[in-house]
Amino acid sequence: MKAVVLLSGGMDSTTLLHLAKRECEEVKALSFDYGQRHRKELESAVWQAQDVGVEHRIVDLTSLVPLLAGSALTDGAVDVPEGHYADETMKATVVPNRNMLMASIAAAWAVSSGFNAIAMAVHAGDHAIYPDCRPEFVEALAAVLEVANYESIDVWTPFLYASKGDIAHTGIELGVDFDRTWTCYKGLDEPCGKCGSCVERAEALGFATS
Amino acid sequence: MKAVVLLSGGMDSTTLLHLAKRECEEVKALSFDYGQRHRKELESAVWQAQDVGVEHRIVDLTSLVPLLAGSALTDGAVDVPEGHYADETMKATVVPNRNMLMASIAAAWAVSSGFNAIAMAVHAGDHAIYPDCRPEFVEALAAVLEVANYESIDVWTPFLYASKGDIAHTGIELGVDFDRTWTCYKGLDEPCGKCGSCVERAEALGFATS
Repeated sequence: MKAVVLLSGGMDSTTLLHLAKRECEEVKALSFDYGQRHRKELESAVWQAQDVGVEHRIVDLTSLVPLLAGSALTDGAVDVPEGHYADETMKATVVPNRNMLMASIAAAWAVSSGFNAIAMAVHAGDHAIYPDCRPEFVEALAAVLEVANYESIDVWTPFLYASKGDIAHTGIELGVDFDRTWTCYKGLDEPCGKCGSCVERAEALGFATS
Repeated sequence: MKAVVLLSGGMDSTTLLHLAKRECEEVKALSFDYGQRHRKELESAVWQAQDVGVEHRIVDLTSLVPLLAGSALTDGAVDVPEGHYADETMKATVVPNRNMLMASIAAAWAVSSGFNAIAMAVHAGDHAIYPDCRPEFVEALAAVLEVANYESIDVWTPFLYASKGDIAHTGIELGVDFDRTWTCYKGLDEPCGKCGSCVERAEALGFATS
């Protein structure tokens, strides 16, 4: 498999990058600036891609920001909620059609460079709130990427049924430097410790190291 | 139906825009600068959207150009072929994963603005060369857009089994000003008259008006 890894710079996709590096014939990483508050994650993405030694591109999608209104992650008028991923309030962090959009661009790059897969770090903890992290989405995405181009592009989602704790375990085994990943949604200089992303990260890493 | 129309500025999508204006409750138009040689088509898109009086955005995707290498439409190193759409040589004009990418962005805009459909002017004449204009692609795209967001987004493709001649007929009935559409792939000041797009346009308009 030659895979383009969608790399946010957070703990899940960074662990996926390390796993891909071990499992795949070739690996490239792709990140997006889509006007997310927590753009700081991109610095982590750069560091992590260099750490594993793969080609890495950051695509500037800031021209899309006006089309993505209403999400707490891209719209300054909407507050980032606190709590757990599965909380109703976390729906505010859904970005319209985000994963399909990112997968489409990753697939375009795969096709143009002779790669045959894209890899996404969606996991079980995302299923409750994010429709575009659920198994039925991944299945439908794989089906469209079988026919959208002359070359069929596979969708590799090894964490689809894993918990964030499982991912933390895997990451530790693979030698991921979690101190150099970025998770917080709030876009401050330091992690807030309260948003869904921070809470889930702390629980997962606590679980994995306890 | 409230539809975001993918508008290139060519004869097919302009006719679709007029049809949508007649058939839909609300219509918006979306165009893309993806580094295409024939960026001149965007001037036509602007004119046509104003002509029917709908909101129109042009998304700057030029940051994607390095990821779309190998297509004659985006890569200066590849010549634009001459002939008919169905010719093998026209494969050079395929842009990696283009329609899925554009549909993803249109769907994001639909979701964020309370629209429930995207409209695409794919037609029967495209099927031979462009995988992302074929019925199986449209069907798979519709399936993924049913589950990618909380809101299901429909894919409206009224010309899917129509010929370009049929579209010309429809456009004439709807009062489309075809002199203000742009088709040529070559990116010159005037249409070349020889590329697949020019040849098919001339045949369709000749057929429709003869």
